[in-house]
Amino acid sequence: MVDLQNVRALAFDVFGTVVDYRSTIVREGEELSQAKGLNVDWASFASEWRARYQPALSRIVRGEEPWVKLDVVHRRALDEVLALFGIDTLSEDEKVQLNRVWHRLQPWPDALAGMTRLRAHFTLATLSNGNVSLLVEMAKHSNLPWDVILSAELARAYKPDPRVYQMATDLLDLAPQEIMLVAAHPYDLQAAYALGWHTAFVSRPGETDANQPPDSTLLASFDINATDFEDLTRQLGA
Amino acid sequence: MVDLQNVRALAFDVFGTVVDYRSTIVREGEELSQAKGLNVDWASFASEWRARYQPALSRIVRGEEPWVKLDVVHRRALDEVLALFGIDTLSEDEKVQLNRVWHRLQPWPDALAGMTRLRAHFTLATLSNGNVSLLVEMAKHSNLPWDVILSAELARAYKPDPRVYQMATDLLDLAPQEIMLVAAHPYDLQAAYALGWHTAFVSRPGETDANQPPDSTLLASFDINATDFEDLTRQLGA
Repeated sequence: MVDLQNVRALAFDVFGTVVDYRSTIVREGEELSQAKGLNVDWASFASEWRARYQPALSRIVRGEEPWVKLDVVHRRALDEVLALFGIDTLSEDEKVQLNRVWHRLQPWPDALAGMTRLRAHFTLATLSNGNVSLLVEMAKHSNLPWDVILSAELARAYKPDPRVYQMATDLLDLAPQEIMLVAAHPYDLQAAYALGWHTAFVSRPGETDANQPPDSTLLASFDINATDFEDLTRQLGA
Repeated sequence: MVDLQNVRALAFDVFGTVVDYRSTIVREGEELSQAKGLNVDWASFASEWRARYQPALSRIVRGEEPWVKLDVVHRRALDEVLALFGIDTLSEDEKVQLNRVWHRLQPWPDALAGMTRLRAHFTLATLSNGNVSLLVEMAKHSNLPWDVILSAELARAYKPDPRVYQMATDLLDLAPQEIMLVAAHPYDLQAAYALGWHTAFVSRPGETDANQPPDSTLLASFDINATDFEDLTRQLGA
């Protein structure tokens, strides 16, 4: 049993852990289909869009491409996926609007209630690859109760680059063991653990991590394994 | 009449503009006097402590001293002022606790109601020389409804260094004319104006800026001159 008494801040991965990008993209995409008379499988569209995320960030993490805001990464991938689906009738304004769906993602059903309870006990921070303005607009749109918006943008890097977690440690002015990362992706938690942070894995069955599916050995290495934010809140005694 | 229709974010100076450092230091100081049997004029103490702020930051802005967090600037000044007042009976823990009074400052009486109304219309950001952890703890302690904590720390500089305002412009991902600085200090507003931001001066009679007292010529150069946050809210139509 790990002693979690000294944890003062919870840093949350956002995409997939706090918000459900798939359902929001499908809903907004279907509205766009109606408005523009398109015939698109938006669930497949969302999968193809997200599938381009990790390879693009990996090229930046490895230094093969210069850092750009995640909005730009999303837009490059959007242009590819629009071509893949043969969609060529969107105006530039419509593409800009569609790309900003990532600013309007809705939380998983259990997220807000859990976060509201946790906020009375801990500092709640984002620690996302989303750029600051994306995270700020998402928080306003979906009423996410953050105490502080921390983004990989502040390190001009992307998770799992250790500089991102180090930036958060420095800005929160805490010892590593006073911070716990909450995430649905093992690779993210492993990087935080390597810097001395505590770790909480939250299972999000609708959110796949095809490259590194969680296995039972891996899960045993995390301080907390939670089924959702309600379970996380209970395990943290909040 | 300036067109303020395109303003999307309000960036607030914090010390003196949103929170009243003088009254909080006096109240906590008097509690410390009781606990330790001290006889201190805490209003003078607060003035001496704050008086060391601008010269210390100016040395950093001019590059004469390396950047350190504002907590460190405050602590160096605290040690000087404790010596000046002949207070030599505080333990290291008590000094740390006293130095963190800046994390616990209370808002001016009109601040919270105005900010709550403004938040429905604008993104509310801090833009303070306070370090991120100081601003986060102050917001939790005093229920300040920020959408995002922006600090000079993110540029490893101090206002009025233009890099601080440029950092905020970049992270908010807005055009300069989409941002308005709200501040009680003309030097701060002038630096923001030079970068193309809109400017709102809020008069805080209890808060002196001895180096640059506002004059009527200066005030005419700001988009808004408000007597308090209620007046600011009214003038912004929020």
